[in-house]
Amino acid sequence: MSRPRVVIVGGGFAGLTAAKALAKAPVDVVLVDRRNHHLFQPLLYQVATAGLSPGQIAQPIRSILRRQANATVLLDEVVRVDRARKQIHGRNAGAIPYDVLILATGATHAYFGHDEWSANAPGLKTLEDATAIRRRILEAFEHAELAADPVQREAFLTFVVIGAGPTGVEMAGSIAELARHTLAADFRNIDPRQARIILVEAGPRVLPAMPAKLSDAAKAGLERLGVDVRLNLAVTGCFADRVEVGADAIACRTIIWAAGVRASPVGAWLGGDIKLDRAGRVEVESDLSVHGYPEIFVVGDAAHVADKDGKQVPGIAPAAKQQGSYVASVIAARLAGAGHPEPFRYVDRGNLATIGRGEAVADLGRLQLKGTIAWWFWGMVHIFFLIDFHNRLSVMLDWIWSYVSFGRSARLITSGVSWSGDEPPPSKPDAG
Amino acid sequence: MSRPRVVIVGGGFAGLTAAKALAKAPVDVVLVDRRNHHLFQPLLYQVATAGLSPGQIAQPIRSILRRQANATVLLDEVVRVDRARKQIHGRNAGAIPYDVLILATGATHAYFGHDEWSANAPGLKTLEDATAIRRRILEAFEHAELAADPVQREAFLTFVVIGAGPTGVEMAGSIAELARHTLAADFRNIDPRQARIILVEAGPRVLPAMPAKLSDAAKAGLERLGVDVRLNLAVTGCFADRVEVGADAIACRTIIWAAGVRASPVGAWLGGDIKLDRAGRVEVESDLSVHGYPEIFVVGDAAHVADKDGKQVPGIAPAAKQQGSYVASVIAARLAGAGHPEPFRYVDRGNLATIGRGEAVADLGRLQLKGTIAWWFWGMVHIFFLIDFHNRLSVMLDWIWSYVSFGRSARLITSGVSWSGDEPPPSKPDAG
Repeated sequence: MSRPRVVIVGGGFAGLTAAKALAKAPVDVVLVDRRNHHLFQPLLYQVATAGLSPGQIAQPIRSILRRQANATVLLDEVVRVDRARKQIHGRNAGAIPYDVLILATGATHAYFGHDEWSANAPGLKTLEDATAIRRRILEAFEHAELAADPVQREAFLTFVVIGAGPTGVEMAGSIAELARHTLAADFRNIDPRQARIILVEAGPRVLPAMPAKLSDAAKAGLERLGVDVRLNLAVTGCFADRVEVGADAIACRTIIWAAGVRASPVGAWLGGDIKLDRAGRVEVESDLSVHGYPEIFVVGDAAHVADKDGKQVPGIAPAAKQQGSYVASVIAARLAGAGHPEPFRYVDRGNLATIGRGEAVADLGRLQLKGTIAWWFWGMVHIFFLIDFHNRLSVMLDWIWSYVSFGRSARLITSGVSWSGDEPPPSKPDAG
Repeated sequence: MSRPRVVIVGGGFAGLTAAKALAKAPVDVVLVDRRNHHLFQPLLYQVATAGLSPGQIAQPIRSILRRQANATVLLDEVVRVDRARKQIHGRNAGAIPYDVLILATGATHAYFGHDEWSANAPGLKTLEDATAIRRRILEAFEHAELAADPVQREAFLTFVVIGAGPTGVEMAGSIAELARHTLAADFRNIDPRQARIILVEAGPRVLPAMPAKLSDAAKAGLERLGVDVRLNLAVTGCFADRVEVGADAIACRTIIWAAGVRASPVGAWLGGDIKLDRAGRVEVESDLSVHGYPEIFVVGDAAHVADKDGKQVPGIAPAAKQQGSYVASVIAARLAGAGHPEPFRYVDRGNLATIGRGEAVADLGRLQLKGTIAWWFWGMVHIFFLIDFHNRLSVMLDWIWSYVSFGRSARLITSGVSWSGDEPPPSKPDAG
């Protein structure tokens, strides 16, 4: 008789961890993703700000699972889940039957019902997002260099980041350093150090998931870098030439959205009767399975999981990994005929965010770090968790080089996205 | 009185060398390019075959010229040259006046009057071209893995490279190694080693610019890698599903065009009375100026320059650099009131091409190398000429890693180009 088939949708931290954790289990694993690479999302903001190249934080899922004999990788896009027939439908592969299904499709950015903002205020989830944002930021300085009208020049030199969670803080700090250090001497008509970086947050503090003390430290660090942090300010409109916050408008040509996430459409795939939270996450059972469907699990950012004191488990890599390996153990236990599994328990190993050169905050429970120590800690942790040895080396090399030279290794304007300003992209590849 | 203004169009090897060579001259240098980066084109094929990342072979022109006080960089696209008013017109900047103009806008691929082939047989000139080709190659294997129909699977596993100059040879060899080594173990339904790589050349031998002996060595090397080299075969049609060569058709889904180049439209900008050769290159005077316009120079791949025995100077980096620095010296001499300059003389320092791991050919005049020695020589030369120290380190790191692991560091399918097959791109970013 053939071995049970575990189909995993999504090659992020949760899905990939589940796949690896099933290496020794008597199952066939099929991992389906519409991208060919696993992305180390915690460093994505560095691609968006020209510090790293896409290849350094991504690796082909195939090569990660190359030596896992019971694993198959399908590059395909899931369009539907058929719970009755126990099969998913891929755009290319058609029906893919499963005995056990693990949905680990993550989240995308949410505009709180204002999807029309997305064109002017792109979010940061994929490598394409990152290179598109990189292009916008670098082109803004180029347009400013060419602008004759000082008002327009200032608008091109104004960067608004919306949302002061880890991504927003990291983006704001990184853009500030790009302007103050990396680009400082590269232009003749403008002084990039005059660039305004504005971080807009609807809540009362930055990094709300952190203890108040560290939020204050992060805010102070951002302000030392010259970031204009504006709290308790709700965005009411994002346009090609301005951000509207309440009554006033900030004239700018570059907006980055880091304000909210929404789960990928797992709920829609599964059908109407599945309970979702406000962010579209599936409200799973204590074993991360879908109510009434013990053979279907939802893990990572697509799942609404409460930790022991009822708080939603944060959407960070460690949480996703823990859920992935937990589900693998549940599946293994079932096959071994073991009894009911312990409910999933999230182990909080802490919370990190970096602001800039020598500036970071780390909440490790009892231990709270800030400044240079936290920054080194952050760097070591991220190097350590990078997918493979080669990437670790090359990222370390780039970081050391940037630290010494203040340079950035990936200051490339390449196409693939269209410039949202009035002018055509200066580097429009198909032109002339 | 203000210093004479030297406007250089194009930040490739010729233009950038001219700009740097004018650092000490009593002139203002304005370098205009529609891209923000200088590209190390000799290694572009490695980006197209996932060996290197775009950031490793490109560097912002601004940062290269950062410390050159008399140089300004404009990211703009030239649409017209007004010889009478002595100004060029940029799409963004408008009129840019010049006292001396250096046109160094390079070349693009030519389809011999069959531009309709370009969609199915992309060429390799820009970073966008390279990532688009990388995407096609990697997606072809993914489609093959999913293909149920063996005929279709074989078509997806057939790669046709048209043109056996250095680029064609390097692409064919590199795709062969990608299939034979890097991807060998990554799939379950296909064996990438079964991929057919066909190199089609209209002429009687590969690397026609090389001595016959080295052409034979290169052909033998390609065949050892499993490349099917077909000489004296003219392509008569490129389609989404096949290449037509004379009477027969080769069923394939990936075609790479490396057969011909055409100069960028310098002739059109300058106006009708300028003498061009068949490839659209401007036939310049012995001092590389345009006949009747001593203040306008054309250098690099946009110029038709004959060496001492009347042969067209090859379109390679060393030739472009020599022309760039020659023109700078001519301009400096004129300003110094020195007499008529010596005509340009191309110094042939040799000719290199690499085929694959441990396989290259080098024609250094008296000395001709092949095999491993030539390969190491090729590697050292290319590392040495890479734009900056940081890139040298990171490229070396990747090469060493690839050499040891047979892996490639940039196996990314990212979007920005559309898949030309019937199916939608599996990784279509805006889908789902």
